[in-house]
Amino acid sequence: MNGKCLQTMIYLDNSATTKPCERAISALNSALIENWGNPSSLYKLGLEAENIISSVRTEIADMINAREDEIFFLGSGTEANNLSIIGAVNLMKRRGNKIVTTSVEHPSVLNTCKYLEQQGFEVTYIKPESDGNLSCEKVLSAVDEKTVLVSVMLVNNETGCIFPVAKIAEGLKQKKSIAIMHTDCVQGFGKMPLDVTELGVDLLTASGHKIHGPKGIGFLYKKKTLQLKPIIFGGGQEKGLRSGTEAVPLIAALGGAIDDLSVTDSFNKIKRLHAYAYNKLSAIDGILINSPKENSLPFIINISVKGLRSETLLHFLESKEIYVSSGSACSKGKGSHVLTEMGLSADRTDSALRISFSKFNTDNDIDLLCEALAVAQNSLRKKGY
Amino acid sequence: MNGKCLQTMIYLDNSATTKPCERAISALNSALIENWGNPSSLYKLGLEAENIISSVRTEIADMINAREDEIFFLGSGTEANNLSIIGAVNLMKRRGNKIVTTSVEHPSVLNTCKYLEQQGFEVTYIKPESDGNLSCEKVLSAVDEKTVLVSVMLVNNETGCIFPVAKIAEGLKQKKSIAIMHTDCVQGFGKMPLDVTELGVDLLTASGHKIHGPKGIGFLYKKKTLQLKPIIFGGGQEKGLRSGTEAVPLIAALGGAIDDLSVTDSFNKIKRLHAYAYNKLSAIDGILINSPKENSLPFIINISVKGLRSETLLHFLESKEIYVSSGSACSKGKGSHVLTEMGLSADRTDSALRISFSKFNTDNDIDLLCEALAVAQNSLRKKGY
Repeated sequence: MNGKCLQTMIYLDNSATTKPCERAISALNSALIENWGNPSSLYKLGLEAENIISSVRTEIADMINAREDEIFFLGSGTEANNLSIIGAVNLMKRRGNKIVTTSVEHPSVLNTCKYLEQQGFEVTYIKPESDGNLSCEKVLSAVDEKTVLVSVMLVNNETGCIFPVAKIAEGLKQKKSIAIMHTDCVQGFGKMPLDVTELGVDLLTASGHKIHGPKGIGFLYKKKTLQLKPIIFGGGQEKGLRSGTEAVPLIAALGGAIDDLSVTDSFNKIKRLHAYAYNKLSAIDGILINSPKENSLPFIINISVKGLRSETLLHFLESKEIYVSSGSACSKGKGSHVLTEMGLSADRTDSALRISFSKFNTDNDIDLLCEALAVAQNSLRKKGY
Repeated sequence: MNGKCLQTMIYLDNSATTKPCERAISALNSALIENWGNPSSLYKLGLEAENIISSVRTEIADMINAREDEIFFLGSGTEANNLSIIGAVNLMKRRGNKIVTTSVEHPSVLNTCKYLEQQGFEVTYIKPESDGNLSCEKVLSAVDEKTVLVSVMLVNNETGCIFPVAKIAEGLKQKKSIAIMHTDCVQGFGKMPLDVTELGVDLLTASGHKIHGPKGIGFLYKKKTLQLKPIIFGGGQEKGLRSGTEAVPLIAALGGAIDDLSVTDSFNKIKRLHAYAYNKLSAIDGILINSPKENSLPFIINISVKGLRSETLLHFLESKEIYVSSGSACSKGKGSHVLTEMGLSADRTDSALRISFSKFNTDNDIDLLCEALAVAQNSLRKKGY
């Protein structure tokens, strides 16, 4: 069961998706084969399925210092972001119609906000600084008494920059703002220690397939006291917040993936790997680093390779079995809105690559990447790309 | 890999959920292990994942006489119903605010309609006849020039009654109605031959876990010319209709489950089994059949056992390793709204059981069920239940 083997390829696109780990696969199979009952069924087969859900719920709650009844499962990080944002403003719409977010959120936040603009909401998109960092003050100064939601990602999915979510949440309290605070943690969950109380957020969202779990599962942390409005209606599963028969095998697999995480250990491993990559990549002539050196999660380095277009480079690397992405996977090759918002030149944005790590990467992967980039610079430039 | 073994239990609750079949499990594992790339990624690993999605899309399209670009994957039948209904009325809201549906739809339709009532839509809920059948004329006569959506399930999930969807769709055309026609086919797909052209519907929804696929996957057929509005926004997957990284392993598994269906063969098998069960159950003193004898999909028989409460009976049968449900799984033991709407007495509704078949059931299962029901009538009644 080695499958599409990480040994024969150099997979450096772990922010797009990750290879499911053995424990996730094993938990998924066990649920499919042993615990396939409908969790809503009143008999034992149903209760056993319900128990699996509960145990993963508790596991996640413990991990982020939440209560078990504050964790809700749904179909993806995208759905979790949609539910957070639409659910929050629908709850609050009598009190105000303003949303504050950043211009470098994931499309599941940005496009949900665009939809809400069509519904009459007013959205302020705060730009990052030129180094990729977000100014807490700029976010807070955009918040007024009509602001009902602030949504700021914890880790930017293209640069890895960590945004000051806890400071913003604290600032909202000091301002006595009514705004609900949401953070998209898809790129942070499982990669750094998280504590919802320290973050001070009302809503936090994450996804399974970014941490070696399967695609098709995400979760939402919702502060107990918040009465979020659902966006999908039906049989009342997940305490009425997300109807639809629970995807027990995927929830089990998410639990398996979490069992396999050693957040602190792998953070330290990746931090060292990141430093190694940062130094090696910076030393290559014509390569510029777009991720901030400070204040960045070490799982991502965004670079630009002078004079070469991202897509050309991506396919060249692919021919060497090295996988990276141009921007995020969701952008499907369109220029990065994140780098553009940082004010980087079109040349630099058009030649950007996102390199993103998992605990399975090694120094050797970085060496081979750097060698390939050097070859690319020589051979592709000669061909006039 | 025999797992929770159908040999040692008598599982007669296949309308709640089904045991995933070997082919579904094998396809799921192969996607998890071999094709775990992000379908939006530009390199081969992404394209391979995208190819899996395409092939299952084509398979479903062929099965229901649709085009490949008319099939969309999402997280459940519930989500598919929500998208159909909310997406359709949002598209049409300038032309009218009326919806016509039945009072015996699945909660994912009924509760979505209730939500829309709060948003200002006017919903007419047509009751079934006392035998469970739905009058096409009653549905059509509720449709006026302000009706923008008609949503009628093909197979009722508690009685198995087949509703006259094709006749209603035809009637709408004759009336030159502007209404979009949706049918919830969760209990019909894979169990009877379906042809969207013959049905004449604009939207058709189905789910994976009712046909021996996994939980967490559903699909929507949307007629090419209909511009449905999404309810989840983000990276623009599924042609913008349902954002979120595609759940490739679940889509693959749905394909595996479909490969394993022999719709006509298993329909004929179940039809014979149903006749056998119908005759045996009818012959037991104190048992009344709630499903209509004619016009019913043979996968479901709904009965009432005079003088015994559904839940008591359900747990008694569970003690004999026989699994049935009281009403639908989603109702979690609440009295059946379907039987109530048919005008059955409270006594009869409170003592109802839904027995639902799969191709894995045998005559012997029915014999054991009937024996257990006879024992229950004797022993439980003596105890004064």
